[in-house]
Amino acid sequence: MLEQLKAEICRANLLLKEYGLITLTWGNVSAISEDYRYVVIKPSGVCYDAMTADMMVVTDMDGCAVEGNLRPSSDLATHLELYKNYPAIKAVVHTHSTWATATAQAESDIPFFGTTHADHFYGRVPCSRPLTPEEIEHGYERNTGRVIVETLNELHIDPMAIPAILVCKHGPFTWGATPEKAVENAVVLEECARMSFLCRTLTGDKVHPASQELQDKHYFRKHGDGAYYGQK
Amino acid sequence: MLEQLKAEICRANLLLKEYGLITLTWGNVSAISEDYRYVVIKPSGVCYDAMTADMMVVTDMDGCAVEGNLRPSSDLATHLELYKNYPAIKAVVHTHSTWATATAQAESDIPFFGTTHADHFYGRVPCSRPLTPEEIEHGYERNTGRVIVETLNELHIDPMAIPAILVCKHGPFTWGATPEKAVENAVVLEECARMSFLCRTLTGDKVHPASQELQDKHYFRKHGDGAYYGQK
Amino acid sequence: MLEQLKAEICRANLLLKEYGLITLTWGNVSAISEDYRYVVIKPSGVCYDAMTADMMVVTDMDGCAVEGNLRPSSDLATHLELYKNYPAIKAVVHTHSTWATATAQAESDIPFFGTTHADHFYGRVPCSRPLTPEEIEHGYERNTGRVIVETLNELHIDPMAIPAILVCKHGPFTWGATPEKAVENAVVLEECARMSFLCRTLTGDKVHPASQELQDKHYFRKHGDGAYYGQK
Amino acid sequence: MLEQLKAEICRANLLLKEYGLITLTWGNVSAISEDYRYVVIKPSGVCYDAMTADMMVVTDMDGCAVEGNLRPSSDLATHLELYKNYPAIKAVVHTHSTWATATAQAESDIPFFGTTHADHFYGRVPCSRPLTPEEIEHGYERNTGRVIVETLNELHIDPMAIPAILVCKHGPFTWGATPEKAVENAVVLEECARMSFLCRTLTGDKVHPASQELQDKHYFRKHGDGAYYGQK
Repeated sequence: MLEQLKAEICRANLLLKEYGLITLTWGNVSAISEDYRYVVIKPSGVCYDAMTADMMVVTDMDGCAVEGNLRPSSDLATHLELYKNYPAIKAVVHTHSTWATATAQAESDIPFFGTTHADHFYGRVPCSRPLTPEEIEHGYERNTGRVIVETLNELHIDPMAIPAILVCKHGPFTWGATPEKAVENAVVLEECARMSFLCRTLTGDKVHPASQELQDKHYFRKHGDGAYYGQK
Repeated sequence: MLEQLKAEICRANLLLKEYGLITLTWGNVSAISEDYRYVVIKPSGVCYDAMTADMMVVTDMDGCAVEGNLRPSSDLATHLELYKNYPAIKAVVHTHSTWATATAQAESDIPFFGTTHADHFYGRVPCSRPLTPEEIEHGYERNTGRVIVETLNELHIDPMAIPAILVCKHGPFTWGATPEKAVENAVVLEECARMSFLCRTLTGDKVHPASQELQDKHYFRKHGDGAYYGQK
Repeated sequence: MLEQLKAEICRANLLLKEYGLITLTWGNVSAISEDYRYVVIKPSGVCYDAMTADMMVVTDMDGCAVEGNLRPSSDLATHLELYKNYPAIKAVVHTHSTWATATAQAESDIPFFGTTHADHFYGRVPCSRPLTPEEIEHGYERNTGRVIVETLNELHIDPMAIPAILVCKHGPFTWGATPEKAVENAVVLEECARMSFLCRTLTGDKVHPASQELQDKHYFRKHGDGAYYGQK
Repeated sequence: MLEQLKAEICRANLLLKEYGLITLTWGNVSAISEDYRYVVIKPSGVCYDAMTADMMVVTDMDGCAVEGNLRPSSDLATHLELYKNYPAIKAVVHTHSTWATATAQAESDIPFFGTTHADHFYGRVPCSRPLTPEEIEHGYERNTGRVIVETLNELHIDPMAIPAILVCKHGPFTWGATPEKAVENAVVLEECARMSFLCRTLTGDKVHPASQELQDKHYFRKHGDGAYYGQK
């Protein structure tokens, strides 16, 4: 079942590797089926070099495997929480990419410092609060998803306008309307984290965010009805 | 029309990718025709892997496409502004290369710290002022070009002696007498931005610029009548 | 003798190179035979490009070569000290990988800053004390091993729970139950050292370690009876 | 003439490129002939991709080309000064490799922070004084060589024990008994510069040099009569 989606998810996982965002087996991509009944996700701890589409795991919305002999990624419950809260999210990516993860370890947002950021994210990319000991002990992966949702809600963030977050002391999650778009957002996030680190280091952390007007111009020339970037 | 120039522009775009200056589809190269009537430029938001010469867009000097089905790069108006002000500029490159862009986000010039810089740029590479809200809202891309010209004029910079600038909160533009030379300047700018970051970080930003004599020696052994670097 | 182990050790050495942890001929991998009587180790100062399984050196537990025409790695005595003290250690890796070595030169531990670290190391990775002049002059390599053992003992570290150490002013050693696992730990250590450097630099070294609960959750979801990461 | 040496020098230049030490055409390798009458050097400003052995330039000890149609590297006079002062130097390398050049721009030595350094350099790698305006204006390249010799003499440095220097505001020069060894020293210098930068940044530049005993142990286990690193 869902053969095409499994092929897409497999390709998206391999794409993360090609983009240099993956060390060892860290990272995973999932997508939700069109009828919102199933999730296809990378199997847990499997080597990227040996990954094939038929190894992808299909689960229901409670996280129970309905096809495949392999265990799903241990982060599945985090992905499910995102799908349940935001119907616009059709694919989720998690990596431990170097610069975004280091920023999450530093418990820092990625501020809006320039047009590279504005082209893809409408505002600063937040870092969540740390999970409480209780949230860690019982239902850790599900609670990770809930803390993401809590962070987006508290900051009144439309998840499709800022399709990325840093989970405190953990690392980045990104998402999108397709697996390919979620992977692209992971690439952009890593590059924005790197540039943010560099310009903060260069200025002794005294750099100012860019203006709201620059944010609007760059974001809306690529998104929405008035977009004029790219091809029709 | 302009088949040879389209091939050159396509190759120059791919060269940027090979040099590691391109993430996703960010960046573009253009050139002006010998009769100064047309500009050939990369199409907007097109994947580098699939790029071919016949996809390059030909526009007139008002930015209207005169050939090709694809939209030109959204930065076209910035390129046009440079061509209109400086007849010596025959090709323009824009990237979001990591170190140069981070320096632009930090709103910092690239000072003259050593011979690597002096070999290619006759003086510090400036960072422009930020665009005003009005400049951003109406005619943003054209105004970006105007602010570049304004910066060069105010600093009395010969654009062929310092063929590079950082646009504040945005990123680098470089240019040259040929597409290949403009690409080369983008490579040099990125490396100078990186070295500048490193030596400023190492010294707690207390490093001194190099001497005017060193600037003159290195620049003029590669440029002008007395040059003795390279082959005749 | 031990042909299979020689093939494994050769492959493990080449794997280090593939992972980008090796400059020139720096680094070595060894393993102990199942009967604990022999050690197979990379020959000293041999080019990685020309390395083959039959060049691997077999020694007894006193470090005397019992097979092979090449000298064993000069760090052999350090490896032997680890095997003699910890029967669970079946393979040892030493590299001069950039970020871990720079951290060792800075005489710094690698604190526990996030889940990437917790997934593999149960607590901060220690940096040893410097060797005394006497320890350096007589039996340097053996004393390096002894100082590693001393450090682990003083900190009550189970070497299989934190399978890595930084030797002060020198560089990293890692180990594991197989050569492949010891190499994997070297890869993880380098990445943790890099992320640790970045988040310390970003925060002016004011970053806090992550919580013990996060350490426990991530470590024990990958290790021990309750593990649920990866495949059965 | 000197066909074998030309092939070696061509290969050494290409090796620099493979090691990632070269941007564009920056950098050059030369060697002196066994009879000390000729120098073979890379031509000036030639693309690495098109480089062949027969393009190498042969000059006499006054720097006059005696074979070949191409101009020698513009740094030739610096190389000659080294050959004239130190008969043990048989090959010279100059690059603008990123970390070493940035350290030279910062006007900083590379202190002895660990065993990676000690294995190859017997003491801190010095940064020269800046050239005076007069030294820059007349005979710049020759004076660069003289300032290198002056620096080594004032610090009582045996150039074969520390086969590397940073020229202030310029970049690194290394040398050795063969072109291959001089290239190796350039690789080591770049890595030591990088590690030095990282451990200085991590500690707020408060890191201490390693001990003389560690210097002696590591240097002399690889060099001299008592060496026991590598193969006989």
